[in-house]
Amino acid sequence: MVHNFNAGPSILPKEVFQQASEAILNFNNMGLSILEIGHRTNEFQAVMDEAQSLVKELMHLDDNKEVLFLHGGASTQFFQVPMNLLDESATAAYLDCGVWGSKAIKEAKLYGNVEVVASSKDSNYTYIPKGYDIAESAVYFHYTTNNTVEGTQMHAIPETNVPLVADMSSDILSTEMDFNRFSLIYAGAQKNIGAAGVNLVIIDKDIPGKVTRRMPTMMDYREHIKNGSMLNTPPVFAVYVCMLTLRWLKKTGGVKAIQQLNEKKAKLLYDTIDSLPIFHAPVAKEDRSLMNAVFTIADADAEKEFLSLCKAANLYGVKGHRSVGGFRVSMYNALPYESVVVLTDLMKDFANKKG
Amino acid sequence: MVHNFNAGPSILPKEVFQQASEAILNFNNMGLSILEIGHRTNEFQAVMDEAQSLVKELMHLDDNKEVLFLHGGASTQFFQVPMNLLDESATAAYLDCGVWGSKAIKEAKLYGNVEVVASSKDSNYTYIPKGYDIAESAVYFHYTTNNTVEGTQMHAIPETNVPLVADMSSDILSTEMDFNRFSLIYAGAQKNIGAAGVNLVIIDKDIPGKVTRRMPTMMDYREHIKNGSMLNTPPVFAVYVCMLTLRWLKKTGGVKAIQQLNEKKAKLLYDTIDSLPIFHAPVAKEDRSLMNAVFTIADADAEKEFLSLCKAANLYGVKGHRSVGGFRVSMYNALPYESVVVLTDLMKDFANKKG
Repeated sequence: MVHNFNAGPSILPKEVFQQASEAILNFNNMGLSILEIGHRTNEFQAVMDEAQSLVKELMHLDDNKEVLFLHGGASTQFFQVPMNLLDESATAAYLDCGVWGSKAIKEAKLYGNVEVVASSKDSNYTYIPKGYDIAESAVYFHYTTNNTVEGTQMHAIPETNVPLVADMSSDILSTEMDFNRFSLIYAGAQKNIGAAGVNLVIIDKDIPGKVTRRMPTMMDYREHIKNGSMLNTPPVFAVYVCMLTLRWLKKTGGVKAIQQLNEKKAKLLYDTIDSLPIFHAPVAKEDRSLMNAVFTIADADAEKEFLSLCKAANLYGVKGHRSVGGFRVSMYNALPYESVVVLTDLMKDFANKKG
Repeated sequence: MVHNFNAGPSILPKEVFQQASEAILNFNNMGLSILEIGHRTNEFQAVMDEAQSLVKELMHLDDNKEVLFLHGGASTQFFQVPMNLLDESATAAYLDCGVWGSKAIKEAKLYGNVEVVASSKDSNYTYIPKGYDIAESAVYFHYTTNNTVEGTQMHAIPETNVPLVADMSSDILSTEMDFNRFSLIYAGAQKNIGAAGVNLVIIDKDIPGKVTRRMPTMMDYREHIKNGSMLNTPPVFAVYVCMLTLRWLKKTGGVKAIQQLNEKKAKLLYDTIDSLPIFHAPVAKEDRSLMNAVFTIADADAEKEFLSLCKAANLYGVKGHRSVGGFRVSMYNALPYESVVVLTDLMKDFANKKG
């Protein structure tokens, strides 16, 4: 039994693997693989429709929201968002609270003015800045809801009238929230939605089309809306895996039920870290992420030793991001509670042994 | 037994489906699915390395060529190519010989001057223009080697000193050619390379970086070269399917062997069309594609009847593109000769019955 704490691509439900594996041999009893059917077939259209409709249902989205499945990953959204929404003379507000958000800021500067409302860079992004002002004149306010690398998460939606744009790559569908408050949400699929190779974008229908610049067809949100995410050949299999994972989430009780599980997993892990002096969590307590927990051991040899123990116990993906070090444990929707029990038991044994 | 003549996504080798299906349950005996492993693992790095190296080997590429696996499909290359290579005041030459090439022309015009050297649009792209001049001052000459929709194919590389850029989406790796003649080749994977959701780009190392414009990180070829196609999370599974398909092609004897099979399949089909007066091939004989054969029946009722017969005989994907009508039969690398035998037998029976 392997326990997969990987930060992404990451664990998906076992039944999704089973169903995806079968569909590669025989999809929908067509006698064809999901890999060899045309995207313009009724059979694939049904997959795309169901995936979009499950997103709307699970997130309780209003009718003015469009659900898109696009190529390119969240890194493409870093520039596609400002290309579509930010005129050269206009200003967008950004929160600088992690490495991914800082990359988004860099790309936005190619298209217009960027006002960084606050930053926690000075402290290696170990907390989420608070108490900042967002100018009413900003065309949008962009932030990252969960910082995969640093292990911080924003637990409330900022109070502002400025349209909200959020990168939710690593916590989408993990916690209940009023998703309708956002004008644009994007998220790489490879954590809570499905497999790597597709990007979920949820967008207000009336948000794009206001900038004056001309842009490539493939980068224009309006073209993707008009073509139902099939402007060109979509990543068929990745969309299919999203649909299977969304089906599983619905069956499991939806976002409310998964939030309870996520809170239970995170509580067990953080309580364990806090109770064992050998482990240290560098992140501000109120900003701790339910999805990615970062912790360290002061002694480098002990760190190596604990990583070896994890490996021997088939705990996969526990090593911290190369820019942070230590350990990072990702607890996405599909991670069973039992995996956290195995990990925390190992942590307790290790702490006891080290006295 | 289903016979899959679909234009893309399209048939792949049976053993690729088998291996991909297994890897979704247990990849490399890791006890993990290929869908849940990190892209920075040694295991996935080995997949990426092998896929790149197989492309180099199968295409006999020189050392100055970089092999990239990128997001976004060929449609993204329509603008990424001129964004990287065409300065605002410079001119690129384009051949207008099909609907996909005409889309590439549209996107290039956003970035610089476009000189269309020749066009067969006036005759619905039923032939490949010849005898045109390419100005020596053009920074590159772009053309589509095979026109999936119209069923035409360029059977020789144009004689010019201008750097060549080609969209080879629907015939890459199907026929021997001097791939080193091209400064940039791109191809959506979903025909001869693997599964939908990834794009192969083969580029001269010294070609990008000469334009003055600033561009988004994700669109800069140099960034992808520097990061070995892992600037962001790659479409892991789609790259894996490419690797499996490339392995199969090598085992089958490489491009030379598959060309012989492709010629044999195309000969059987075109000979059949030519021998049966009820069927008509609208494309100029010398420009017929080995990959996609387009043909028609004058009588609309007979057309419907033949399509029903195909359906009943489990011949999949025979209907023509909505913009052309009639029939389109795609015979990519993985299509067995036997499938063309079944189709042509049905055509002969049908012609006999119709007298």
